[in-house]
Amino acid sequence: MSKDVNALIKELAVLNTKGMYLNDFLLTWDKSDDEIRATFKVAQILRELREKNISTKLFDSGLAISLFRDNSTRTRFSYASAANMLGLEVQDLDEGKSQVAHGETVRETANMISFMADIIGIRDDMYIGKGNTYMKEVAKSVQEGFKDGVLEQRPTLVSLQCDIDHPTQSMADALHLIEHFGGVENLKGKKIAMSWAYSPSYGKPLSVPQGIIGLMTRFGMDVTLAHPEGYEVMGDVEQVAMKNAEAFGGSFTKTNSMAEAFEGADIVYPKSWAPFAAMEKRTELYGNGDDAGIKALEKELLAQNAKFKDWECTEDLMSKTAGGKALYMHCLPADITGVSCEEGEVAATVFDRYRVPLYKEASFKPYIIAAMMLTSKFAQLVNILLHAATTA
Amino acid sequence: MSKDVNALIKELAVLNTKGMYLNDFLLTWDKSDDEIRATFKVAQILRELREKNISTKLFDSGLAISLFRDNSTRTRFSYASAANMLGLEVQDLDEGKSQVAHGETVRETANMISFMADIIGIRDDMYIGKGNTYMKEVAKSVQEGFKDGVLEQRPTLVSLQCDIDHPTQSMADALHLIEHFGGVENLKGKKIAMSWAYSPSYGKPLSVPQGIIGLMTRFGMDVTLAHPEGYEVMGDVEQVAMKNAEAFGGSFTKTNSMAEAFEGADIVYPKSWAPFAAMEKRTELYGNGDDAGIKALEKELLAQNAKFKDWECTEDLMSKTAGGKALYMHCLPADITGVSCEEGEVAATVFDRYRVPLYKEASFKPYIIAAMMLTSKFAQLVNILLHAATTA
Amino acid sequence: MSKDVNALIKELAVLNTKGMYLNDFLLTWDKSDDEIRATFKVAQILRELREKNISTKLFDSGLAISLFRDNSTRTRFSYASAANMLGLEVQDLDEGKSQVAHGETVRETANMISFMADIIGIRDDMYIGKGNTYMKEVAKSVQEGFKDGVLEQRPTLVSLQCDIDHPTQSMADALHLIEHFGGVENLKGKKIAMSWAYSPSYGKPLSVPQGIIGLMTRFGMDVTLAHPEGYEVMGDVEQVAMKNAEAFGGSFTKTNSMAEAFEGADIVYPKSWAPFAAMEKRTELYGNGDDAGIKALEKELLAQNAKFKDWECTEDLMSKTAGGKALYMHCLPADITGVSCEEGEVAATVFDRYRVPLYKEASFKPYIIAAMMLTSKFAQLVNILLHAATTA
Repeated sequence: MSKDVNALIKELAVLNTKGMYLNDFLLTWDKSDDEIRATFKVAQILRELREKNISTKLFDSGLAISLFRDNSTRTRFSYASAANMLGLEVQDLDEGKSQVAHGETVRETANMISFMADIIGIRDDMYIGKGNTYMKEVAKSVQEGFKDGVLEQRPTLVSLQCDIDHPTQSMADALHLIEHFGGVENLKGKKIAMSWAYSPSYGKPLSVPQGIIGLMTRFGMDVTLAHPEGYEVMGDVEQVAMKNAEAFGGSFTKTNSMAEAFEGADIVYPKSWAPFAAMEKRTELYGNGDDAGIKALEKELLAQNAKFKDWECTEDLMSKTAGGKALYMHCLPADITGVSCEEGEVAATVFDRYRVPLYKEASFKPYIIAAMMLTSKFAQLVNILLHAATTA
Repeated sequence: MSKDVNALIKELAVLNTKGMYLNDFLLTWDKSDDEIRATFKVAQILRELREKNISTKLFDSGLAISLFRDNSTRTRFSYASAANMLGLEVQDLDEGKSQVAHGETVRETANMISFMADIIGIRDDMYIGKGNTYMKEVAKSVQEGFKDGVLEQRPTLVSLQCDIDHPTQSMADALHLIEHFGGVENLKGKKIAMSWAYSPSYGKPLSVPQGIIGLMTRFGMDVTLAHPEGYEVMGDVEQVAMKNAEAFGGSFTKTNSMAEAFEGADIVYPKSWAPFAAMEKRTELYGNGDDAGIKALEKELLAQNAKFKDWECTEDLMSKTAGGKALYMHCLPADITGVSCEEGEVAATVFDRYRVPLYKEASFKPYIIAAMMLTSKFAQLVNILLHAATTA
Repeated sequence: MSKDVNALIKELAVLNTKGMYLNDFLLTWDKSDDEIRATFKVAQILRELREKNISTKLFDSGLAISLFRDNSTRTRFSYASAANMLGLEVQDLDEGKSQVAHGETVRETANMISFMADIIGIRDDMYIGKGNTYMKEVAKSVQEGFKDGVLEQRPTLVSLQCDIDHPTQSMADALHLIEHFGGVENLKGKKIAMSWAYSPSYGKPLSVPQGIIGLMTRFGMDVTLAHPEGYEVMGDVEQVAMKNAEAFGGSFTKTNSMAEAFEGADIVYPKSWAPFAAMEKRTELYGNGDDAGIKALEKELLAQNAKFKDWECTEDLMSKTAGGKALYMHCLPADITGVSCEEGEVAATVFDRYRVPLYKEASFKPYIIAAMMLTSKFAQLVNILLHAATTA
């Protein structure tokens, strides 16, 4: 990343980002091309400024609220890092310590926590049909609170993973590719294999594969989604990928063969996920409080998984990729065969060889989150960044 | 709130706030009239500055410690917001993660956490005779630590609710009324009904009704406390209310009829609480470790509550208030009939109609807490606020 | 502490601290004499600056990550205070809320949390052979991450207590002695009794006695380690103490008599700890998941402890110290006879008489931690401190 900050800011200045101001970042396909590019640019600018030891504390004060309904290490720390870098303070809404369970509505809670909130980050990825819906309800609530004069500012939302998309992950992944291949224009025509892989665990969210096919198809890439029969992702997101492929001159292909997906691929992303249909059933069982049903489903799904232990990213499969040297990606943590489990998503030698690129892939997340925060809160972002860069 | 900041600061300047410096905010009736007014003024000044986008980070650094012995959403976030607005960082004393249980005395813990503490905020409202006593013990401990040269500064306490008073709530409520009616002078002669209301839950603290009758009687209001027989509040606080009524030219009346309280009221505050006598018994049972006794008491109290399901803030009751348009207040979350419970404190249509004012009521809490922080930590607060307002 | 800041900075300037830059603070005996002295000096400078109300926020932004694998009040707050004083924000890695348990390696986690981390503070004192090993693994991981370009900065580690040493405690204790006796040169020839004492609890870490004998022998003191037979500390640390004694012209003596240790002592540090051999056995049992074995061991150790109830710091024992007025020290919380337990480490009258010095002892910890942070992160620390002191 050796680009000049001023050059990057100039490139940002020509993009139309008006729609981002006071808006949320929930699904990448809700964003225009300019908005997606602007997010990358701002992330790159922030990284450049930080590398030059120029302060990026663009907020005087303010809270970045986080609500994690699922465990998290890297997203939690990425979010905290982004907030800290910009001058915001994280305040965690721990539902266990709050009165949320005792009869507060979403609307009420959203307003009550937002009097000084600039940003609300939410991870809610456990139940199909719930996470994104909840985020939209929070967004609507604070919008109304702002309109009604309850809130002096409209906090904007950043999805830290929902049931449909995982935008902070897919955008960081994309920026990793942009940096790796030397520019977004160089992604055109590259083949990426988003493949299911075996894991001895159960119920991993679908938001990563969905996020990847929904985003990477925007850059003219040849996106292949591979999974065993029965491990389909949401049809709606496949529709997004298909439309993108058409619009941006790439392709979106599905296959039930990992080998086929890897064949000639420039990038591979082998990762386990749960079948959409099963996740829907689980949501229903959960809604009915059917614990026995959930346990039975879990058992069934683990048995089903076990039929596909050969869906592992091995050296042999890697050798079939472009020049045998595809870039291996993962959102981490990975299930590594013989390391974190007996049989898993990836062979230890493959994982080890790509450890440094994998960690670099993750390193973009704080900057992507910070870019999502900034673009939604500053109408005059270009001026503010120029000022930061030049007065330092 | 369109008042000029400089005008507000001038009004603050004539008030005697010397007694607030390095002092705690535990009970509103421990504060002089000037001190109460000053707290409102500072809150209004902070809100004005924030609305004008003028930084209110008046601390260079420092910790605002919080200790919550009861669940909390809005007070927790209000406290965090106040701290953030002023440049303090919240550090939560989580007794579960600390060694407090393992033989540390109050005196020791108070000093050990206070080396860089500017403010200590405590919520301890669960047991009669405990919360306020504990806060005073903490205050005494840090006062001694400061005197002995252990602490370089004397952290000041803000009660975030005790067994007797809930000053951040009642002061925010009062500021809401001041803003709603256009000035504290307009509260004179207004009738406020602080009424018990039915809730299907058990053991709600008495600090809200007590805080309201102890504070609102200072503004020349006609304060009516209504509850079924057996739901008395602390006699000491009733004494405070009576003395206030006499001193400030309002009145303090008690009744066992919700309808009577609502008759002609300008403001209604229907809210459930537990009977004082029962809470005393519960504290005793808790002290004896009598779990069975506590469960029996709980059952008994719920049965007793159930006799008063007609204590609900209905449309019919609201129609009896002044012009049928009394301002409905609640500290939230409310038990809304048909929404958060089958039968509760308030009819859904009443609650819905007052949602925006209710949220606004809550919006004053961060500013009130920040004002309590500032008045106790800066001897030259007027100059500091003037400086902030004019150099921005 | 009336020394002039500029004088202190001049004294700091002549010390060789090059080895501290981008290095960790894990064991005091890994540090050179200049580095130990520099840590005291920086702590004193920070305290002076704070007392003069001069800002010590030397970081623009950045995270100070904390990982507590054991409960903590004072160290947690000392760490938060140090971070706040310097302009860093604490982000707690709560392993319960993270995915650490789900297959992440130390190397991966260390990198994933460190993208914006300046400091990582770890308490891991529960298992012999584990804590320090873990810290070194984290240090190696972030060093590699930095070298590989994954991390833009190399976060440095501060041990907040491991199985071997408790450097933030022993260094704060030493600074307390330096201040108390008016200079490090005055410690030469002073007798300090680090003595085991009875406690009705089980399994207290050995890091305090080990830290004390490993550090205090560097100042030419006569260090006596007293404990009942069977309560030996790590042999390696005794070796350190013996070598120090030889090198610095003091002495290191062992005895099985508390009275002998107290005889003529200028300083006494009576504190309970678990026998090293038993702690090793416990670590093994834990490794084997042998819960029954652990319970049996606990019972056995409590019975063994009970044989030594006369190892209590009584008035009678205190009267045998130099002039009957030895300085009593403790890391707190202490087991006080008749206060926090029936029979404990110290008589209530002794503890009470030394309460203020004990609290002052603790007050040095935030400054020591801050000094460890600063010396590892700023190559030009002298200039930066001079700048802070003179431009204020």
